[in-house]
Amino acid sequence: MKYMLDHVGVAVRRIDDALPFYLDVLNGVLEDRYTSEATGVEVHVAVVKTEDKIIELLEPTNKNSPIARFLKQRGKGVHHLAYRVDDLDKAILEAKNKGVRFLEDTLRVNARGRRLIYINPISTDGTLIELCEYPTS
Amino acid sequence: MKYMLDHVGVAVRRIDDALPFYLDVLNGVLEDRYTSEATGVEVHVAVVKTEDKIIELLEPTNKNSPIARFLKQRGKGVHHLAYRVDDLDKAILEAKNKGVRFLEDTLRVNARGRRLIYINPISTDGTLIELCEYPTS
Repeated sequence: MKYMLDHVGVAVRRIDDALPFYLDVLNGVLEDRYTSEATGVEVHVAVVKTEDKIIELLEPTNKNSPIARFLKQRGKGVHHLAYRVDDLDKAILEAKNKGVRFLEDTLRVNARGRRLIYINPISTDGTLIELCEYPTS
Repeated sequence: MKYMLDHVGVAVRRIDDALPFYLDVLNGVLEDRYTSEATGVEVHVAVVKTEDKIIELLEPTNKNSPIARFLKQRGKGVHHLAYRVDDLDKAILEAKNKGVRFLEDTLRVNARGRRLIYINPISTDGTLIELCEYPTS
């Protein structure tokens, strides 16, 4: 199984405060903006591509958003690393067989059709890591 | 100027606690281990490659290490994102012309010959970002 770094999720208070740096200094391109109001997500997302990788700027939509809790506990900065796999079900099974624990029992599908699950940071020595699989079109 | 994501620096208390996840679960390869005792750095580094990108595991060598301070303030997790450029002097000049501030007045050279400088998080909306240039061999 190949694990390819897909994107870095960055927690921000306001997307519009963070965007100029990624667009004007790192010469990134704003590829997408959307809002997820699914319970346990609740986030405005800006997708910025700099050369070969994506930065996801994540702004909480309300105080119960996990991003709001992250900002309160740790402040602004990198929230998670996401690794893309071809077969997420197989990756989850392989990881579980190696003793890896996940934050949720089942994967979910984000607002853009990406299937994803978060590994429990207990299993990564502290870093929040997403495993994801993109829809085949 | 092209800014290519080069690596992600992850602050850990003990490299040996973090390595197994990256090697055994994400199927990474340990490419290098070294220690920098330069003042203001003071860090043990493990360089892990997963497919196309590098994770740098950063363990403080003493309590005055910036990584020790980061761990105390924020806990374990992503410490910085590094973007590689072909011409770091030009990149610094361009960024300064756009109002970007840096943590140091001058760039430094790490234990492996990489030239690097950190952008002041004031200019990035909170995320610590390194700009770097590799030696041409």
